[in-house]
Amino acid sequence: MRGGRGVSDAINMKAIAMTLSNNMHAGSAATRRESDLLGHLDVPASAYYGIQTLRAVHNFTLSGVSLSHHPRLIMALAMVKQAAADANHRLGNLETRRFEAIEHACQRIIHGEYHDQFVVDMIQGGAGTSTNMNANEVIANVGLEFLGRARGDYQHLHPNNDVNMAQSTNDAYPTAIRLGLMLGHDDLLESLSGLCRSFSRKGDAFADVLKMGRTQLQDAVPMTLGQEFHAFATTLGEDHDHLKRRVPMLLRAVNLGGTAIGTGINTDARYQKIAVERLAAISEHDVAPAHDLIEATSDMGDFVMFSGMLKRLAVKLSKICNDLRLLSSGPRTGFNEINLPARQPGSSIMPGKVNPVIPEAVNQVAFDVIGNDLSLSLAAEAGQLQLNVMEPLIVYKIFDSIRLLTRAMDMLGTLCVDGITANEAHCRELVERSIGLVTALNPYIGYDNATRIAQKALTTGRGVLELVREENLLDDNTLTEALRPENMVMPR
Amino acid sequence: MRGGRGVSDAINMKAIAMTLSNNMHAGSAATRRESDLLGHLDVPASAYYGIQTLRAVHNFTLSGVSLSHHPRLIMALAMVKQAAADANHRLGNLETRRFEAIEHACQRIIHGEYHDQFVVDMIQGGAGTSTNMNANEVIANVGLEFLGRARGDYQHLHPNNDVNMAQSTNDAYPTAIRLGLMLGHDDLLESLSGLCRSFSRKGDAFADVLKMGRTQLQDAVPMTLGQEFHAFATTLGEDHDHLKRRVPMLLRAVNLGGTAIGTGINTDARYQKIAVERLAAISEHDVAPAHDLIEATSDMGDFVMFSGMLKRLAVKLSKICNDLRLLSSGPRTGFNEINLPARQPGSSIMPGKVNPVIPEAVNQVAFDVIGNDLSLSLAAEAGQLQLNVMEPLIVYKIFDSIRLLTRAMDMLGTLCVDGITANEAHCRELVERSIGLVTALNPYIGYDNATRIAQKALTTGRGVLELVREENLLDDNTLTEALRPENMVMPR
Amino acid sequence: MRGGRGVSDAINMKAIAMTLSNNMHAGSAATRRESDLLGHLDVPASAYYGIQTLRAVHNFTLSGVSLSHHPRLIMALAMVKQAAADANHRLGNLETRRFEAIEHACQRIIHGEYHDQFVVDMIQGGAGTSTNMNANEVIANVGLEFLGRARGDYQHLHPNNDVNMAQSTNDAYPTAIRLGLMLGHDDLLESLSGLCRSFSRKGDAFADVLKMGRTQLQDAVPMTLGQEFHAFATTLGEDHDHLKRRVPMLLRAVNLGGTAIGTGINTDARYQKIAVERLAAISEHDVAPAHDLIEATSDMGDFVMFSGMLKRLAVKLSKICNDLRLLSSGPRTGFNEINLPARQPGSSIMPGKVNPVIPEAVNQVAFDVIGNDLSLSLAAEAGQLQLNVMEPLIVYKIFDSIRLLTRAMDMLGTLCVDGITANEAHCRELVERSIGLVTALNPYIGYDNATRIAQKALTTGRGVLELVREENLLDDNTLTEALRPENMVMPR
Amino acid sequence: MRGGRGVSDAINMKAIAMTLSNNMHAGSAATRRESDLLGHLDVPASAYYGIQTLRAVHNFTLSGVSLSHHPRLIMALAMVKQAAADANHRLGNLETRRFEAIEHACQRIIHGEYHDQFVVDMIQGGAGTSTNMNANEVIANVGLEFLGRARGDYQHLHPNNDVNMAQSTNDAYPTAIRLGLMLGHDDLLESLSGLCRSFSRKGDAFADVLKMGRTQLQDAVPMTLGQEFHAFATTLGEDHDHLKRRVPMLLRAVNLGGTAIGTGINTDARYQKIAVERLAAISEHDVAPAHDLIEATSDMGDFVMFSGMLKRLAVKLSKICNDLRLLSSGPRTGFNEINLPARQPGSSIMPGKVNPVIPEAVNQVAFDVIGNDLSLSLAAEAGQLQLNVMEPLIVYKIFDSIRLLTRAMDMLGTLCVDGITANEAHCRELVERSIGLVTALNPYIGYDNATRIAQKALTTGRGVLELVREENLLDDNTLTEALRPENMVMPR
Repeated sequence: MRGGRGVSDAINMKAIAMTLSNNMHAGSAATRRESDLLGHLDVPASAYYGIQTLRAVHNFTLSGVSLSHHPRLIMALAMVKQAAADANHRLGNLETRRFEAIEHACQRIIHGEYHDQFVVDMIQGGAGTSTNMNANEVIANVGLEFLGRARGDYQHLHPNNDVNMAQSTNDAYPTAIRLGLMLGHDDLLESLSGLCRSFSRKGDAFADVLKMGRTQLQDAVPMTLGQEFHAFATTLGEDHDHLKRRVPMLLRAVNLGGTAIGTGINTDARYQKIAVERLAAISEHDVAPAHDLIEATSDMGDFVMFSGMLKRLAVKLSKICNDLRLLSSGPRTGFNEINLPARQPGSSIMPGKVNPVIPEAVNQVAFDVIGNDLSLSLAAEAGQLQLNVMEPLIVYKIFDSIRLLTRAMDMLGTLCVDGITANEAHCRELVERSIGLVTALNPYIGYDNATRIAQKALTTGRGVLELVREENLLDDNTLTEALRPENMVMPR
Repeated sequence: MRGGRGVSDAINMKAIAMTLSNNMHAGSAATRRESDLLGHLDVPASAYYGIQTLRAVHNFTLSGVSLSHHPRLIMALAMVKQAAADANHRLGNLETRRFEAIEHACQRIIHGEYHDQFVVDMIQGGAGTSTNMNANEVIANVGLEFLGRARGDYQHLHPNNDVNMAQSTNDAYPTAIRLGLMLGHDDLLESLSGLCRSFSRKGDAFADVLKMGRTQLQDAVPMTLGQEFHAFATTLGEDHDHLKRRVPMLLRAVNLGGTAIGTGINTDARYQKIAVERLAAISEHDVAPAHDLIEATSDMGDFVMFSGMLKRLAVKLSKICNDLRLLSSGPRTGFNEINLPARQPGSSIMPGKVNPVIPEAVNQVAFDVIGNDLSLSLAAEAGQLQLNVMEPLIVYKIFDSIRLLTRAMDMLGTLCVDGITANEAHCRELVERSIGLVTALNPYIGYDNATRIAQKALTTGRGVLELVREENLLDDNTLTEALRPENMVMPR
Repeated sequence: MRGGRGVSDAINMKAIAMTLSNNMHAGSAATRRESDLLGHLDVPASAYYGIQTLRAVHNFTLSGVSLSHHPRLIMALAMVKQAAADANHRLGNLETRRFEAIEHACQRIIHGEYHDQFVVDMIQGGAGTSTNMNANEVIANVGLEFLGRARGDYQHLHPNNDVNMAQSTNDAYPTAIRLGLMLGHDDLLESLSGLCRSFSRKGDAFADVLKMGRTQLQDAVPMTLGQEFHAFATTLGEDHDHLKRRVPMLLRAVNLGGTAIGTGINTDARYQKIAVERLAAISEHDVAPAHDLIEATSDMGDFVMFSGMLKRLAVKLSKICNDLRLLSSGPRTGFNEINLPARQPGSSIMPGKVNPVIPEAVNQVAFDVIGNDLSLSLAAEAGQLQLNVMEPLIVYKIFDSIRLLTRAMDMLGTLCVDGITANEAHCRELVERSIGLVTALNPYIGYDNATRIAQKALTTGRGVLELVREENLLDDNTLTEALRPENMVMPR
Repeated sequence: MRGGRGVSDAINMKAIAMTLSNNMHAGSAATRRESDLLGHLDVPASAYYGIQTLRAVHNFTLSGVSLSHHPRLIMALAMVKQAAADANHRLGNLETRRFEAIEHACQRIIHGEYHDQFVVDMIQGGAGTSTNMNANEVIANVGLEFLGRARGDYQHLHPNNDVNMAQSTNDAYPTAIRLGLMLGHDDLLESLSGLCRSFSRKGDAFADVLKMGRTQLQDAVPMTLGQEFHAFATTLGEDHDHLKRRVPMLLRAVNLGGTAIGTGINTDARYQKIAVERLAAISEHDVAPAHDLIEATSDMGDFVMFSGMLKRLAVKLSKICNDLRLLSSGPRTGFNEINLPARQPGSSIMPGKVNPVIPEAVNQVAFDVIGNDLSLSLAAEAGQLQLNVMEPLIVYKIFDSIRLLTRAMDMLGTLCVDGITANEAHCRELVERSIGLVTALNPYIGYDNATRIAQKALTTGRGVLELVREENLLDDNTLTEALRPENMVMPR
């Protein structure tokens, strides 16, 4: 069976990592030879990445998810490289021609090109060095093309000496992570506010649908379905406001300029300020220099906090989807207060069965995000001394959580909430049959009568209103008044 | 408030023991009979709690940790009860004599009395009803004493009708949780800022201790021990500022007045405003009415977020303690850069062995807090419809995390950080022996020479400086200049 | 052993209170002076513990839960000490009089005495040294009393030299943990099998209650309530069998004899075999020497696995309690298939409301246990080199999980499951009203007719049987036959 | 910025889901129209999947990881379908020609063909219905091709009526999960035993390398590096044995034949036995019918347990990798006892820096697996009544954990452990310089002398042996004897 692993994994890999396949098949075609401290390797001639990327591809076959999975991260890396080159050029350390080549390459990557060249696995050792070198090598080779030079002809534009000038993985990479998260953050907010609007619209539409509220899954007191859906909008709206206000504050302080451990060893004292200003201009995001670069180099606290916010959102979404599934349970043996739009046939055995597949999928996304938050927290805790070597996992998990939540909220709003309808008559019937209704009669018939009626209803299986009428405890006008929704669903 | 911690714990411990002993010995001593919907029970005559509390004690023998373990929560419950009574009195619904009795009882509880009467287990079903009833019953019986009546003579002051008037567990209890967390928050901040100061003082003291920075546990480039300790202060300081700014905002909106499900059914429309204002006055904390009471009744998001902040703090503390243990490893076969103060003998087999017991304990507290955060998140996710029945676990875990962190930070600052000393000579020797030192010579001898020297050092086991001197690559003055700490530990 | 649980908890609670009161009052009362490597301290004259215990009490005020909270652990420590003394005596290294004193002291502790002297916090640095020394000191002082000597007169019986002879914390402590878990394991199994029986009895009692099964909260096909309750018994029974069979295998290999790091340095080569044999005899549990003592000294894998089993049990219990709460939801607006016994009044606002407080509490216990499993796993991962210094947290969490689960299962069986009744008529009515019923008619009326009937029922709100009868698709005899429970709830 | 999402996600998706691209581009080419209960859709003419798969693709764009990512699962699905068809054929319910077509299609899938047609996202609502229908549709269309019919011409071979005959997603899918896990299990075991062998070989190679053991990161007593590496082999070997013995027992009981909820409604009473026997024969794995099909339909306990075992393995691997990184820390300012093979250049700033990238990556895999275990546990807990709708997430996470661990262990063994070398002289030098060495002299010079020497060594910074010689406490012969490794690293 083991012998088969190669075969099935090959199939498997073909399915998920087509990115590499050109390069792999190219192995039989032309290659170019590149060298580093450990020796040399044959890189596919067509590849824009180089030897250090290839070493990382050979070392790390783990998650099966490559950097190209997260375009925002790649764009942010290119922005950082461009900003650094700009600063180096202004300080006279990088000649104009080389700077132009780097700028050209970064701009093309920022506009979505060459992402398939970011082939390193999201899980990698080396604290992000392979990601940083993947960016350096691709930018160098795209730049070499711009300069009319052959790929790999690094004397004219070097991945380390030129593209990585005045940088270390340890400052360029965390800076790119922060920026990449900022880039993705607008998407998340837009999905979240879209979902809030969906719930809010239903809250308005269901404003007059009277129903029983339930606490501890037991009948409680009346409310409207509109109140219930508005509460969903409110609770998500709080997260929207919180994320919108807090996340940019959380992410803006970057450690660019700190190089290896935050001391900025061997860098020009003017470099940090210029590089960060250029980064803000290029990215159009409000980044600023971190106050304590030693701390900023190793601390992962901001990512822990961001992930904690995403976990809270996941917890809320899961609770809401649990409610949607409960409220739509049935049709005959459940609550059956609302109908979710049918998205796919349920069962071939049971005709007419349509399942709440969309909220079910959101629940699972929420559990995945909660798991991601744990993995990320473990990685943050495992940092040692001047660096957190587990940063690649942190990046993997937080970008994954953002994407999962964004997609899940789009799905939930569009494919489910927008199509929800209410079973108004059934909701009202449940209120009328409910014993909890007696609470609203307390002020009219007194607590003792209410208790007696409640117990009689429970024992006999009869309705509270029926019993009140039978005993002539209230005339019909007063009863009608007492049971007007506006009198039951808010303070009088 | 802080000075009282020892006292409250003493009360607390006594209370735990009394829970059991009361019930056990009660059979032989005097009892009074109390009744509720389910029948009657014999309550110890001396007890201020009543039948519903006793039912909960019989039902829930789980964590072994009673409410009295968390005095802040009990004080907050009494404040809520007093505020509600005040509002009811002002609205003319509660007669003056009864109000005075309630006010008296609440004030005594707020001042630390009767906490041993809060005997229900922290883990309980019923969404906090048992906690709320424990408060209602103790206040009623203390109030009855004030009125010159016997315990249990509830016609003169009733736990439900009077003490719980216009409230439901579902609004009084979450309001008390928020307030209780606010009360405990100052302790947490004080411990945290104390610890920051401890690290900051050591940062100043070690400002001139040159040492090697390490990334990925490998020799990197020089820094000062002062920079390392200041970074600890910085990273914790960020949490201090974040907690101080965010937590009051997070907790201030209370759902008092929402009663059962947030609709405020059967309450006076003026009640909410007055009750919340009174609560702010009594507690001297800035509480305000929640905007959407339906949402506020069931949503646990603010506790998830608060716990997430505590988890981040735990993660940071654990990372710092890992570093302290690494830096003090040895004395002969480890890093041995710093010495932690000896707190207790290590091993009888190995003379002189003294272990880093304080940071080790902090690590464990951090893991406990991370586990608490998970339990709390699961409880938050499990809320259904108009209420979260898992609230008692949320309360248990968040109060536990706050206390654990507060105590751990006090311990870490006082018993460990304040006594740390540096092995300055050894730190400097490690720098001088390090190959990473060559990085600082790059600008003087060039990258090629540096690389050659580095490799020669690695192969021969000799020192970089020794080799540089041997090859006359630099004169002594330049070498001294290059290796001046201020030139190595910041941009030039 | 089980009968004693109440008693040990009483001891336990008293001990917690005494920890503080001793130290607090001690200042005014008599003390004795004891010394160690770090100096001397005044120990309360009445205390059986000594200076090293007192140092730990001063160092660690964290969880507020002392060792005395877990009597099984204390008993196991005494068994280990007795076994070691026995081996040392047989090898001629411990004189008879001293051995007898140790044996006497251990026996009294094993029988439940002196537990209040185990005052160290469950969370502690030092990898258990404080726990081990607490045991050594209490045994020495009880033994000194036996010898007619004063407490603290250690020349006649020394905590280290005599009680701890041939041991290190690093072998004695993990051995005691394993043994303590074995001692508590029978309680857990008994509670679990009791709960299985409760579910099984209800499964028998409800064998004829026909009801609708639900998948994805949507009506599926008929089953019996008996099948549903038997499935609860089955799933818990699997855990019972698994725990019963696996846990003793998991725990039996002890590292006693490995001393500091598993090399057994300076021990007599015959010691390990004798000591472990004596431990098996004293404890009446099947312990055996670990195969690789180096590995056994640092590895926490067995505790991770045991905790993983407990987590699985918690997950199952939580799922079952979720089901019980769903099935008993209502009474009017929920499923209302079963009634849970009323344990305490629900709400003063809503007369007659009785909540499912027992399963709610079990859910919270489950979440607590899942959190414990995480904390424990983090502690296990944090082990370094030849020891895991986080062992005290592992002990704390696993003993806590066992106790929580044991108590929760007792509570669930006795206070809830045993009193559950079925609403048989309502269950049958739901089946008859259900559209899913049509599935059972498939073989008689064909899939096309079934589909048409299902859709007609859904649209019109009418019953499937009513429509089948109206269309004369089946005569009454056949219909009766088709709907016989035994034809619907199993293969034909 | 939002506008850009479409663009980058398109790039992104192209990179990871090439599987779909044929079908997507085919959209502009020929399509065929298919229908279901909800209407009709145009399916790419070249696709083997059908309308229900396409609906799921439209519904669920979440993880970006499709079923084709896990070939074992797809193979297992085909085996289940073949076994069911076989049973149906033998019972006379499926005509021979249709059976042959199904058998042919299943065999081709089992041999690795058509996996790219399994396009549904791993996270999906519907409790696996989409996965089951993806299999049914692909098998039907491959079978139709075998029968010489056009794709979509389902009257000749129907996805539901023929391929899914006598099955429900709720029995076929969990059965396939169990079988798929069995298929992957051998890979996991092989990787694990390979890694054990790697550690064991190094244990043998380093048998004579004397070094200091460390507890609590402090110098303890001597051991050999061989003992340390053998302990790694031992601890992983325990997991190998445990997994090998337990997992097949855990997974073997399948619920095939239970259909919708375990009652086996409308199935032939002989079907279950035949189908499971055929499945055992086809898969060559020891599957057997579950005892309680109601329980087996909804219970996820076995997956929780399996994942718990994987978590334990992850915890152990992480601890080992932490140790490898510690032992190889340096080269000058760390422990430097071992050298890990260089896999890629470390830093461009710091010449000669080579990082422990392989163990770092394993740590991250471990954290990912621990997060997966949590997500899976949450999904297991969320099951309700007769089904667990979160099964797809459980499948996703457990297959992911197995693959991650398998790959990580292969990587660790081959790219790291096999190339580890020892710095024998440095190890011995550390022993000789260590104060802990004095423990081995205890039996010769007495505890008092040992203590005095230890303290003198600590104060003066001098060596223990040097001081012993200086004081003539031992002659050189005895000293040599005392310090013979075999006398220090095991009982005498």
